[in-house]
Amino acid sequence: MKIVELRECTVPLQGDIANSLVNFSAHTVSLVGVITDVVRNGRPVSGVAFNSIGRFAQAGLLQERFFPRLKAAAVDSLLYRDGSGFDPDKVVASVMANEKPGGHGDRAAAVGGLELAIWDLNAKLAREPACQFIARQFNNQPIQDTVPVYAAGGYYHPDKGLGGLANELRQYQDLGYQDFKIKIGGASLTEDIKRIEAAIAIAGSGAQVAVDANGRFDLETARSYARELGQYELKWLEEPGDPLDFALNREIIEHYSGVIATGENLFSCADVHNLIRYGGMRAGLDIFQMDPGLSYGITELARMIKIMEANGYSRKSAYPHGGHMINLHVVLGLGLAGCEAYPGVFQPFGGYASGCLDGQGRVRAGDAPGFGLETKPELKTWIDRLLA
Amino acid sequence: MKIVELRECTVPLQGDIANSLVNFSAHTVSLVGVITDVVRNGRPVSGVAFNSIGRFAQAGLLQERFFPRLKAAAVDSLLYRDGSGFDPDKVVASVMANEKPGGHGDRAAAVGGLELAIWDLNAKLAREPACQFIARQFNNQPIQDTVPVYAAGGYYHPDKGLGGLANELRQYQDLGYQDFKIKIGGASLTEDIKRIEAAIAIAGSGAQVAVDANGRFDLETARSYARELGQYELKWLEEPGDPLDFALNREIIEHYSGVIATGENLFSCADVHNLIRYGGMRAGLDIFQMDPGLSYGITELARMIKIMEANGYSRKSAYPHGGHMINLHVVLGLGLAGCEAYPGVFQPFGGYASGCLDGQGRVRAGDAPGFGLETKPELKTWIDRLLA
Repeated sequence: MKIVELRECTVPLQGDIANSLVNFSAHTVSLVGVITDVVRNGRPVSGVAFNSIGRFAQAGLLQERFFPRLKAAAVDSLLYRDGSGFDPDKVVASVMANEKPGGHGDRAAAVGGLELAIWDLNAKLAREPACQFIARQFNNQPIQDTVPVYAAGGYYHPDKGLGGLANELRQYQDLGYQDFKIKIGGASLTEDIKRIEAAIAIAGSGAQVAVDANGRFDLETARSYARELGQYELKWLEEPGDPLDFALNREIIEHYSGVIATGENLFSCADVHNLIRYGGMRAGLDIFQMDPGLSYGITELARMIKIMEANGYSRKSAYPHGGHMINLHVVLGLGLAGCEAYPGVFQPFGGYASGCLDGQGRVRAGDAPGFGLETKPELKTWIDRLLA
Repeated sequence: MKIVELRECTVPLQGDIANSLVNFSAHTVSLVGVITDVVRNGRPVSGVAFNSIGRFAQAGLLQERFFPRLKAAAVDSLLYRDGSGFDPDKVVASVMANEKPGGHGDRAAAVGGLELAIWDLNAKLAREPACQFIARQFNNQPIQDTVPVYAAGGYYHPDKGLGGLANELRQYQDLGYQDFKIKIGGASLTEDIKRIEAAIAIAGSGAQVAVDANGRFDLETARSYARELGQYELKWLEEPGDPLDFALNREIIEHYSGVIATGENLFSCADVHNLIRYGGMRAGLDIFQMDPGLSYGITELARMIKIMEANGYSRKSAYPHGGHMINLHVVLGLGLAGCEAYPGVFQPFGGYASGCLDGQGRVRAGDAPGFGLETKPELKTWIDRLLA
């Protein structure tokens, strides 16, 4: 068994939304295809994945560095010992040859997309959903049938207003979501408080509403928000400051009785270890959000989880960034806490295939082999184009 | 005045060398050109620079994200207030639009190469060497005429042996170098000690020999090396462990009386701030090695220096990674400690133009406008090709 071709397709995200820092109208994601010489039903078995959402497509890095190294690697050096598939750990070691330590940014997303495609491939070779395959590799069986999912949204839009926010959350309720996450930091604290109160009024309680500052605040602003938000006992307050400012994270935690969530912009074990050492994260309370598609894939994420557990944190504190089919399978397969969803945005990648949502705030994976990306029609169009 | 074209050329490094972690035979660097509508002597005034050495060319990121954003920016928003050139700070803000915080890896090198080309352009517009232009922008005048330079080498090679290492360092002495840096960690501690003693025998003292582990060691190995190396009172011990493992750095410093150097794999103010907060770096002793070509350029490096000074460290503790003309101008312009040089390797980018070395362990910048990259014949060939 060998890889005969590696492909990348840069896909533009649909939608015109913005958080407090980033406008997504020009955003792109890499769809990655790994094509093998194994033929079933007249077609080659191929792994497909993408590098999550939020840090752009990585066509250049994949074509310049990672695809050539993988193509040059000896086939035998990449396989599982029993020859049943490609060992993601060996694939990553192979494509990371001659890369220096540190500097975990774009390359972590490029390698992440490629590594995830290897998992999709392996699960398809084994004719099972990726969550089952992942769970077996990491001795995490049996897995849950469903996990909690919350609807993330509440983006700023000039014409939206409080009524628009309320309508948005009601639409999510109609889809079966019970918990929500909205953006903060793109308006004044006073206005954000009104937004939060409007969201709580619809959700029913603060525990059902998370807020996300996207790393925007300096220490003083973060302190002001933390002081005001404490009373609402929110689901969590996400990324109050720069994701690498562990001192700020610790400082806010010391003055905030509620839950803090962070980690979606940490892309390596070294960075996560620093968050644990210096960020003040409280075991059993605060939430880690590392996203495999942005951080070298599932192999590195599993190592991060190991570091968390070695330091007294539970894997049930991990809520990966990226509301899509891939991370649903990862959450189920590794036994993590739950998923996010971005209903209606970040298409064609965001959200879940028809039938995954149970209408009561939980999501299941379905029976399709691999990550089941082909069961999302708008994504299947792109996959067909990639593999044509 | 406006930018009419942005160009990138991926240049392969010459040479076949390896440190303890990385083989450079397939290494590439991005040569970046910023072409304006200002015409002198019948040719457009153009800024040229490269993204240092060690983290690969960045054609993809430049073409996919940073060039299009700079081209789309309104000209007036990029100029200095007096219209005399392009404000590097504004250029970086413009190309970093819609980029999320954290994840300072490849994009920091892509933006670094582009930002440096803006400085080269500004200095050429002002008809002066870049060091003079940089010094004026950062109120660092007058500048020194020369700065110390050491010869870095001592790479591992299967057929080299101790005699080969000694011959290499003697060749550097013949070129006028007095201080050296050699690699460690690619052999056993016992063999590395022999290499270090051979180097000291040629240099004259341990204070003239630095050693570089390139982030390879785990804590136990780093401890073993630190224990054995203390007696030699070396120039410094560089990157004993992973560049983001600040706890290891602090631990080694607590058990090592000599100088520790690190920072070449930290690409943002946030990362440098963490090194200062958690890494145990001793003011007046340990060395910082951040490289502008890998870390968003001179603007971000100047901010890093400000953070160092605000925390009691001197800019005379900064010895940037990357032995080449660009960082020579940066060291002179910002008043940093000194430079490295890689005689004979990392061509066409490494090393200095003819006449820069003074034969007594110091290096000067020369009178050419900008970074003077055109005064290195092997590099001029590539620049001519880039701008043709």
